[in-house]
Amino acid sequence: MTTYVYDFTQGDKDRADLLGGKGANLAEMTRLGLPVPPGFTITTEACREYLAQGDEPGELRVQVTTALRHLEDKVGRRLGTRRDPLLVSVRSGARFSMPGMMETVLNVGLNDESVQGLAEEASDERFAWDSYRRLIQMFGATVLGIPADVFSSALDDAMTTRGRAAGDGPVADVDLTAQDLRELVATYRGIVRERTGRDFPQDPREQLDLAIRAVFDSWNTDRARLYRRRERIPQDLGTAVNVVTMVFGNLGDTSGTGVAFTRDPATGAPGAYGDYLQNAQGEDVVAGIRNTLSLDDLHRIDPLSHQQLLQAMRRLETHYRDLCDVEFTVERGHLWMLQTRVGKRTPAAAFRIATALVDEQLITEDEALQRVTGEQLASLLFPQFATEPSDDGAASRALTSGMAASPGAAVGTIVLRSEDAVAAAGRGERVILVRRETNPDDLGGMIAAQGILTARGGKTSHAAVVARGMGRTCVVGAEELDVDEDAGTVTVRASGREPTVLHAGDEISIDGSTGEVFLGAVPVVSSPVERYLEEGLDAVSGDGAAVDDETLSLVRSVDRLLRHADERRRLRVKANADVPDDAARARRLGAQGIGLARTEHMFLGERRGLVEQIVLADDVTERDIALDRLLPLQRDDFSGLLDAMDGLPVTIRLLDPPLHEFLPDHTELAVRVAVERSRREGGGPGELSDDELAADEKKLAALERLHEANPMLGVRGVRLGLLVPGLFAMQVRAVVEAAVGLVRDGKDPRPEIMVPLVGSVRELQIVRDEVESVVRGVTELAGVDLTIPVGTMIELPRAALTAHRIATEADFFSFGTNDLTQTTWGFSRDDVERTLFSTYLDNGVLTISPFETIDADGVGRLVRIAVEESRTTKPGLELGVCGEHGGDPESIRFFHDAGLDYVSCSPFRVPVARLEAGRAATTDAPSSSSR
Amino acid sequence: MTTYVYDFTQGDKDRADLLGGKGANLAEMTRLGLPVPPGFTITTEACREYLAQGDEPGELRVQVTTALRHLEDKVGRRLGTRRDPLLVSVRSGARFSMPGMMETVLNVGLNDESVQGLAEEASDERFAWDSYRRLIQMFGATVLGIPADVFSSALDDAMTTRGRAAGDGPVADVDLTAQDLRELVATYRGIVRERTGRDFPQDPREQLDLAIRAVFDSWNTDRARLYRRRERIPQDLGTAVNVVTMVFGNLGDTSGTGVAFTRDPATGAPGAYGDYLQNAQGEDVVAGIRNTLSLDDLHRIDPLSHQQLLQAMRRLETHYRDLCDVEFTVERGHLWMLQTRVGKRTPAAAFRIATALVDEQLITEDEALQRVTGEQLASLLFPQFATEPSDDGAASRALTSGMAASPGAAVGTIVLRSEDAVAAAGRGERVILVRRETNPDDLGGMIAAQGILTARGGKTSHAAVVARGMGRTCVVGAEELDVDEDAGTVTVRASGREPTVLHAGDEISIDGSTGEVFLGAVPVVSSPVERYLEEGLDAVSGDGAAVDDETLSLVRSVDRLLRHADERRRLRVKANADVPDDAARARRLGAQGIGLARTEHMFLGERRGLVEQIVLADDVTERDIALDRLLPLQRDDFSGLLDAMDGLPVTIRLLDPPLHEFLPDHTELAVRVAVERSRREGGGPGELSDDELAADEKKLAALERLHEANPMLGVRGVRLGLLVPGLFAMQVRAVVEAAVGLVRDGKDPRPEIMVPLVGSVRELQIVRDEVESVVRGVTELAGVDLTIPVGTMIELPRAALTAHRIATEADFFSFGTNDLTQTTWGFSRDDVERTLFSTYLDNGVLTISPFETIDADGVGRLVRIAVEESRTTKPGLELGVCGEHGGDPESIRFFHDAGLDYVSCSPFRVPVARLEAGRAATTDAPSSSSR
Repeated sequence: MTTYVYDFTQGDKDRADLLGGKGANLAEMTRLGLPVPPGFTITTEACREYLAQGDEPGELRVQVTTALRHLEDKVGRRLGTRRDPLLVSVRSGARFSMPGMMETVLNVGLNDESVQGLAEEASDERFAWDSYRRLIQMFGATVLGIPADVFSSALDDAMTTRGRAAGDGPVADVDLTAQDLRELVATYRGIVRERTGRDFPQDPREQLDLAIRAVFDSWNTDRARLYRRRERIPQDLGTAVNVVTMVFGNLGDTSGTGVAFTRDPATGAPGAYGDYLQNAQGEDVVAGIRNTLSLDDLHRIDPLSHQQLLQAMRRLETHYRDLCDVEFTVERGHLWMLQTRVGKRTPAAAFRIATALVDEQLITEDEALQRVTGEQLASLLFPQFATEPSDDGAASRALTSGMAASPGAAVGTIVLRSEDAVAAAGRGERVILVRRETNPDDLGGMIAAQGILTARGGKTSHAAVVARGMGRTCVVGAEELDVDEDAGTVTVRASGREPTVLHAGDEISIDGSTGEVFLGAVPVVSSPVERYLEEGLDAVSGDGAAVDDETLSLVRSVDRLLRHADERRRLRVKANADVPDDAARARRLGAQGIGLARTEHMFLGERRGLVEQIVLADDVTERDIALDRLLPLQRDDFSGLLDAMDGLPVTIRLLDPPLHEFLPDHTELAVRVAVERSRREGGGPGELSDDELAADEKKLAALERLHEANPMLGVRGVRLGLLVPGLFAMQVRAVVEAAVGLVRDGKDPRPEIMVPLVGSVRELQIVRDEVESVVRGVTELAGVDLTIPVGTMIELPRAALTAHRIATEADFFSFGTNDLTQTTWGFSRDDVERTLFSTYLDNGVLTISPFETIDADGVGRLVRIAVEESRTTKPGLELGVCGEHGGDPESIRFFHDAGLDYVSCSPFRVPVARLEAGRAATTDAPSSSSR
Repeated sequence: MTTYVYDFTQGDKDRADLLGGKGANLAEMTRLGLPVPPGFTITTEACREYLAQGDEPGELRVQVTTALRHLEDKVGRRLGTRRDPLLVSVRSGARFSMPGMMETVLNVGLNDESVQGLAEEASDERFAWDSYRRLIQMFGATVLGIPADVFSSALDDAMTTRGRAAGDGPVADVDLTAQDLRELVATYRGIVRERTGRDFPQDPREQLDLAIRAVFDSWNTDRARLYRRRERIPQDLGTAVNVVTMVFGNLGDTSGTGVAFTRDPATGAPGAYGDYLQNAQGEDVVAGIRNTLSLDDLHRIDPLSHQQLLQAMRRLETHYRDLCDVEFTVERGHLWMLQTRVGKRTPAAAFRIATALVDEQLITEDEALQRVTGEQLASLLFPQFATEPSDDGAASRALTSGMAASPGAAVGTIVLRSEDAVAAAGRGERVILVRRETNPDDLGGMIAAQGILTARGGKTSHAAVVARGMGRTCVVGAEELDVDEDAGTVTVRASGREPTVLHAGDEISIDGSTGEVFLGAVPVVSSPVERYLEEGLDAVSGDGAAVDDETLSLVRSVDRLLRHADERRRLRVKANADVPDDAARARRLGAQGIGLARTEHMFLGERRGLVEQIVLADDVTERDIALDRLLPLQRDDFSGLLDAMDGLPVTIRLLDPPLHEFLPDHTELAVRVAVERSRREGGGPGELSDDELAADEKKLAALERLHEANPMLGVRGVRLGLLVPGLFAMQVRAVVEAAVGLVRDGKDPRPEIMVPLVGSVRELQIVRDEVESVVRGVTELAGVDLTIPVGTMIELPRAALTAHRIATEADFFSFGTNDLTQTTWGFSRDDVERTLFSTYLDNGVLTISPFETIDADGVGRLVRIAVEESRTTKPGLELGVCGEHGGDPESIRFFHDAGLDYVSCSPFRVPVARLEAGRAATTDAPSSSSR
């Protein structure tokens, strides 16, 4: 027989899959002997069966009955009786926290009988009827599906009536008398009857069963499904249901309720930290009705409960070996623990707490690594808004906030239309594009803006996806904003405050890491963590100012965990860099070489004309002249790069542009030629000289010949190298000559040559022969001994599928997972991120962009095939990755598992990659400890 | 000890890998007791070791010595002696025939001594010195690398001198006297001394060893490597060397030499067939110096030899159970067999011979299937030039010929420039583009022309690759042509004939199946085989004319083998067809259903505007109006198709165009708008109304929004369906309504719905839900019971890699190997076939376009993965292919081996696919019996 119901005395924290997070932790606290109100948990399995069959498993009702009787016996109360009635709360509790998504019903067990008993027992009639009123209201909305505002209107009416009776305006709900509430209950019951055609159930067991079903059903609401899709939580887990004896913090001043943390979750500073509200219930704390008290205040009010709470929290932190948060209630001087979990914390707190716990010998350094994530470190590395608290705390107070969709700190004036953003950017102004939501028409404006702020949409909305794709700071779903494009205003409607009206042209600041929106220009400062990692302690203090302790503690924690990660990781970390400055920076941040130096960027700007000449050349001489002119320029490029990375490997990729990137825009040129011709035909004066027109016409003809329908799949990389004789040879010559020059200067240059877009071993073979011949030629002439490894990108499915053969001609492979993702999925990144991905993330085809985190099933499988089979051919083959995935935490774990030797990422992500590589090496657990 | 040398008495025909084709067959004839001159074969293994080490294996010399002594003993002659000297030929002989690629040296063993002995023995001094002269000439060119024209100049001088002595012009070589030849030998020896610094070797063993080396070396010449690359022969096989006792056909009128076939290789008609030349050596036959005699003439001249030859040939045909060709020599009335092999034949002959051999009970019907190929059948299905022989045989005589690069029969007037071709085609003229060679600039002209003829380049040249890609008739490498673009002439310089000068505007006909070029318009007729297969015997007779026996025999042979293939094949054959006429034709040609009905073609033409409206729609209403208007049109489309295939499955693919195919050309529109604006700014009158300009501007803005950098990887297929609500639903509704209508008419429609470009199971799931809901809605309303399978294309690497998951939502898979090839290789077909492939075929990266024959290692591997893993999930899953590979013989074999259920190809290729599927099912041997 399947067990669907677990008493709190039966479960433990390791059964969260079955009992949900809340149920498992309530059981754990019970096991620890902490004062948890008795109760039981209905398993997620019961929920799954209910959802699959549309009905509870038959056994469930029986097991609930047994558990209920057991509970009644334990607390000496009976459900629904007048004397000592048992009241319970029915709370959802899934494996992963889904705040606000699911349902809770309090005070189950109250009816016309038991409300009397509750009043007598508490000697507080008002309290009892208020509790009953709350039950019907919650039950009506949650279980019976009656719109919540129907009840709140009735409540408002009652408050107005009471106020009028007192000759005044409406009163607050606490001013309602027992009689008022008794009448309100009658009104509520009338609502239930009218809306559902039946009476509010007086049978407490019926209340309970319906509440349980309602919690089960709440798993599958649209918003819950959407939330899970966005948060990448599986849809088939189901939720557990916790049935807990009610305790009351609202029984006068000796009662109260609060939340507390074993350490400060914002900074990580040691010492318990919390909020307490006298004579209140849990939801009052969250609703922020009254100002809360501190734990010190609780100490003053009720020293015994305070002491018990601190002891319980210390016990929990020792037991969970991590920061815990708790919810507690004091009922007439008696402390009850209502919930605990490993607490969420800010990135800075995560690092400080992890190292503090090591120092306290609660966890090992390996474990400490598991307590922080690469994403947390990344957010610490972004430039930040300076958040010096001003005296009144107002300066740093956010105007409103939304979802943090794409990190960074952006400041600019409000524009409401994309074309205005483009125009303003054209004038050199910094703007924030504020839209209700964006669509593909807004792309130009998004590119032109410093940041994007939307009132609607989540992390997978168009704005969020596109902004992340292009690295723009972005905040989405700031729902307090009302954007009126026609009026040119943005109105902020925060509850409990007067609306603030902003106008186009007003300056705002948005924080893409926190989702906060500020009025005015908040100063942006570089991250102290980044400064410390790159330049050491002195850099942190800035303009000679002393470093504050908190910052000092943070940077030391980060540094310490990074060093430990370095000790443990198996993956080497290299950087993608094309210029000496970036290379030097990457090196300071810990890069162990350059894994990808792209040479196409070196061919832009002024040199573009030369490349145009090479590609469009009519004859060999013309091409050779251009190649000869490029050689010394390229030599200098490589010399600088090799010098900056002296002693470390520098992997130089031969030219890999889609052809069209070097050529003039076809439409633009066609328009220019057509307009000029039309002008001349019209007898008017042309704007071009005859020579210019002829040159344009010639270029246009060549462009039409070379035009590619799909440049991403056209003549690029090794294909261009094999079609344009001398191009690769020139580049290789420049590399070797640069290295020879450095060797002569006593340096230790370590260039490696990487061939892009290879799909067949024969391509690599031909280029390798050419490379080796150039290397031999130059080094023999110079009398310098240089070994230059030759490898290839694996960025086409065919390369991965024939890696065992390609390996025979390669000294190393570097997986180009950007392109591999494009071809494996058939996605042109430039196109689909803009046009398709927000739809695909919304409808669940994608849970995350495969360009952000590697698609393990498709692209990842090709990587695994290539790793395994190439190593069979050539056991010592050096394998790395240089796509953007090389800096993505979840992908890094994948690459570690797949057995790569290194990842290469942008210089800025090097510390992130070091940390994640260390984390991957010290565990096989999932990359993120909380969802 | 490795055996490197095999006497002819030791080998047999099954050891061609080791002994080469020639050596194995010489051994086989020896074993059969046929009169083969004694000799031995040096193995391909010896060649491979020589090439790897740069020197003969030590054992080889020893084994040659042994074999040589054995040979001397057997024939009673000694190498290099004056009395009874042994002369040998040294002939290359690889596993696969490489005509003209490799080396042969005759008369090895002649020196100043043995030439005397030969003269005495033959009683013919002139013969002996001519043989010596030939040895030095061949040896000098082949072994010593002296340019051949140095010797031929000396020969010319000798002939001139002799002629002058006779008071006449130059004489022929046969007119040279023994003395002349003696002097010529001296001259030749002087050349050798001068060019190599040493004397012509007098030691016959040294001659032999050097000749063997030269044959080995000839394996690796550039032209041999290139030839193999183009013919897809592995580069590492090496060649065998045959050392054969010389026999002489040039010892007077009782001697002679010839080639013969056991049946007519042109028509397949039974009865031996051959050419004989009296008093001649082998090379004279090939050179065509004198008119040859027939075998009947040999019967008259030398009845005994004739009888022996016919007996030998009958023996060979019985033994090889196939058409054989032989080379033979009669030396003073004694027949010697010098070579045999299974003979090449025309496609028509292949079919007639195969069925004839079955009737003669020499082979089984299964074996007969192996004697013909799909390519041969395909070539019989093309329209042909009418080749009624005129009385003098001149009308059908080709002007010149080149390589058959892309089949078909094309007639048109000569144009020499691409722009002229475009202009002429614009006037509705039919032209043949004649170029020295083509380059990407010629693309427009190639599209405009009926056919392409080039003077240079092989089957992998730009012209050949592009023409095949676009299905244009093409002949390349017609080397007798001299194309003078400036003069506007094409001169045909055939040796031995006066040059013919053609002019631009002259009419010519080119045969892409034979490579022949004809002057004037040769009448084109449809293929009798095609007519017969499609319409039966009556159709073959044409305008009431009687069918000739040869045609009758051919069509019956084809039909018979096709029927046998149908009995044996496991693969079903369907057709790709979008319109009823094509479907009906495919059905007549044996298609068992429609495997791919593309719906995008149905959206072109007049309906384009509606599609534009759907895609560019500003609001839902506008889109729905367009969808509503398309519905009845689509219903008619499907009704016709389903009716034509009544009772057979019709797989309808939902819309899959790259977006840009439906939209106006961006550049064109941008130019129109810019020119119009410029006109108006210039104060001139515009050409567009204000409304037109506004509409164009709106469209241009939408285009810029929807513009995709790589439409092949953009919003297509299922992506478009998920982005444009209602589009797929409209198509499915049209299918179901069409089917319901047919059911009501008592028909048996069997539609299937196919979803394109799926990369993830979730995409299919969403569409499948929608499809099923529409099907249910329409059929329930109509009260008609219809089961409509829903499947997907597998055309992205990710689809193949996750096929086990996609299978859960699919009733069938159809591999779209065109797109799968594009993404697996990262090739945009439209681009790379034009720009890259001729280079890639030349440098050996490709041996054949992967769009022609499936790339088994890359694309094929994905197919195998998907087949295996999807069947694990769903054992009965129906698997097929509908890319163009479905009609390619070699690919069909691959699909058979991979375990697919069907192939779908163009209607025209259905018979080819039936044949190849039958061949695949009856053997596991390679698809082509000769190379």
